[in-house]
Amino acid sequence: MAKTLITVAFGDGIGPEIMTATLRILEAAGAELDIETVEIGEKVYKRGIDNGMDPKAWDSVRRTRVLLKAPITTPQGGGYKSLNVTLRKALNLYANVRPTVAYSPFVETTHPKMDLVIIRENEEDLYAGIEHRQTQQVYQCLKLITQPGSERVIRYAFDYARANGRKKVTCFVKDNIMKFTDGLFHKEFERIAAEYPDLEHETMIVDIGAARLANTPERFDVVVMPNLYGDILSDVTAELSGSVGLAPSANIGDGFAMFEAIHGSAPDIAGQNIANPSGLLLAAVMMLIHIGQAAVAEKVHLAWLRTIEDGIHTRDIYREGSSKKLVGTDAFADAVI
Amino acid sequence: MAKTLITVAFGDGIGPEIMTATLRILEAAGAELDIETVEIGEKVYKRGIDNGMDPKAWDSVRRTRVLLKAPITTPQGGGYKSLNVTLRKALNLYANVRPTVAYSPFVETTHPKMDLVIIRENEEDLYAGIEHRQTQQVYQCLKLITQPGSERVIRYAFDYARANGRKKVTCFVKDNIMKFTDGLFHKEFERIAAEYPDLEHETMIVDIGAARLANTPERFDVVVMPNLYGDILSDVTAELSGSVGLAPSANIGDGFAMFEAIHGSAPDIAGQNIANPSGLLLAAVMMLIHIGQAAVAEKVHLAWLRTIEDGIHTRDIYREGSSKKLVGTDAFADAVI
Ligand SMILES: CC(C)[C@H](C(=O)O)[C@@H](O)C(=O)O
Ligand SMILES: CC(C)[C@H](C(=O)O)[C@@H](O)C(=O)O
Repeated sequence: MAKTLITVAFGDGIGPEIMTATLRILEAAGAELDIETVEIGEKVYKRGIDNGMDPKAWDSVRRTRVLLKAPITTPQGGGYKSLNVTLRKALNLYANVRPTVAYSPFVETTHPKMDLVIIRENEEDLYAGIEHRQTQQVYQCLKLITQPGSERVIRYAFDYARANGRKKVTCFVKDNIMKFTDGLFHKEFERIAAEYPDLEHETMIVDIGAARLANTPERFDVVVMPNLYGDILSDVTAELSGSVGLAPSANIGDGFAMFEAIHGSAPDIAGQNIANPSGLLLAAVMMLIHIGQAAVAEKVHLAWLRTIEDGIHTRDIYREGSSKKLVGTDAFADAVI
Repeated sequence: MAKTLITVAFGDGIGPEIMTATLRILEAAGAELDIETVEIGEKVYKRGIDNGMDPKAWDSVRRTRVLLKAPITTPQGGGYKSLNVTLRKALNLYANVRPTVAYSPFVETTHPKMDLVIIRENEEDLYAGIEHRQTQQVYQCLKLITQPGSERVIRYAFDYARANGRKKVTCFVKDNIMKFTDGLFHKEFERIAAEYPDLEHETMIVDIGAARLANTPERFDVVVMPNLYGDILSDVTAELSGSVGLAPSANIGDGFAMFEAIHGSAPDIAGQNIANPSGLLLAAVMMLIHIGQAAVAEKVHLAWLRTIEDGIHTRDIYREGSSKKLVGTDAFADAVI
């Protein structure tokens, strides 16, 4: 098989450890990858590049069109822009796909039957980054919702549901308050849903929707929503499934794609060989499917599942009883291999 | 004891049923109330008053300064303003106090030890209602955060914690993205926290904060946050405690106060005598404390607690095993009495 060229960034904090583990597993599984490594994040910010990524790295991503990215640390203090948000906007990655699955009884969870995918709009909303100080005492941030932006991600959600054998698409909005912005998202949802009569659809106000998602996640299938709600609620569902350390995400656009764990760089546990590489590894599985290496993807996914089912667990999901063996990052990767 | 004059609104949907039940209990407990009843909600909207409350009702609330309010229904379609939001802004009700307590083992919950209070800012944020259509395809909503608005609610949260024997105040913001608006809220939080050295304080990014709140609510005590996060997360915690039907809220300003359940008017179950009046009743308990009738408040609260502990439950919290008797709204009120 021809090798696929991809860009890889090792990131900050626990990033290098979980990326090393992930790449070792991909290699052992026979993934056909030609890897360009780029440096992003903290060191680059500190060299004075305000978005954390230098021109060489941008050049690589624009050429390979696929980025596998470990979490990064944005330094404290003013002037730094979020690299995540910059990448999503610069590469037009309009859909952020975040599956959460319970691996019960192997991983302890209060919701053994959950198996859902949150698809969040990924460029607009309060993330558009339009914020200003009106007076010393009054600050404003603009929430932006557009028709093309909403249509694109909603259509993606319905197509995704169809392609993945899902039955229902739920939309979360707060259009009893935001009648224009969230109202537009809702209207687009209803309009596009009508083109997919084979799929169920429903809309919920985000407050009660969030309550149901937290209490009965098993009743949801695909859930599409504006950016900020999706940010908050995908962390909630991941944690409910057992650990934020388990959850992958795919940032998808028409020309580019970026794959990453949903968790952060966790500097407090960096360098200790205890982080769970699963979120990034499962993101890499999504990447393999995206670049057409579905067979390798399945192999990696099954090996990972087997490791989890064997009770070989990192600290975040280790529980007396359901787990068998407490391992570090490296040993977890060895077990998967 | 001198009677206290209050305004009462029966609302829409299940509103009249749960308000009747609540008032019967208050009367039986010997609450000293002089009640002015006003009509608000659906019928008023349909008479063409765009905020759902006519001048007579406004006049009553401005005189009595205390409103006990059942949920209302805002008609579908354009032009109607949320009465909740209108009341909060017109009466300067800057703090929305939402306690959630687990009543385990009497009410089934995955989090038997949760006992927390969310205090949400109640006038600003995306609720300021500044929204517009820029082109046919581009809509914007303004998120507003001010220094006085933030200071007021944060100070309220620390004072509330102190007055109620709470130990810790947690702040949720998303200031890695919204550096100005949420950054201001965070800065005010740190500044004010320094004036309360007897209380612990901590700040979390709202996504991971929400995940922890949903997964380990028992680790939280008082949590203060901007309006929209509080809207979403107070529904989440209420539902996790057993039912949104259990959760009260107090909307507090310097001159006025409004007490209500956090749930909506649930038109689908209206008129069937099955709704849980607990949210509104517990809001009435908060009201009694507010108007200086703490002894009656305690009496009502204990009688309610006893009913719940006796396993006399409405449908939303009735579970084979933990519950003993399934009752309707009226019979629940009888049992409390
Ligand atoms: C790091 C941060 C900018 C990002 C976000 O808010 O989207 C993260 O929380 C995520 O969910 O990917
Ligand atoms: C009815 C609605 C405007 C209100 C809100 O969003 O604040 C409700 O959800 C609440 O939480 O009190």
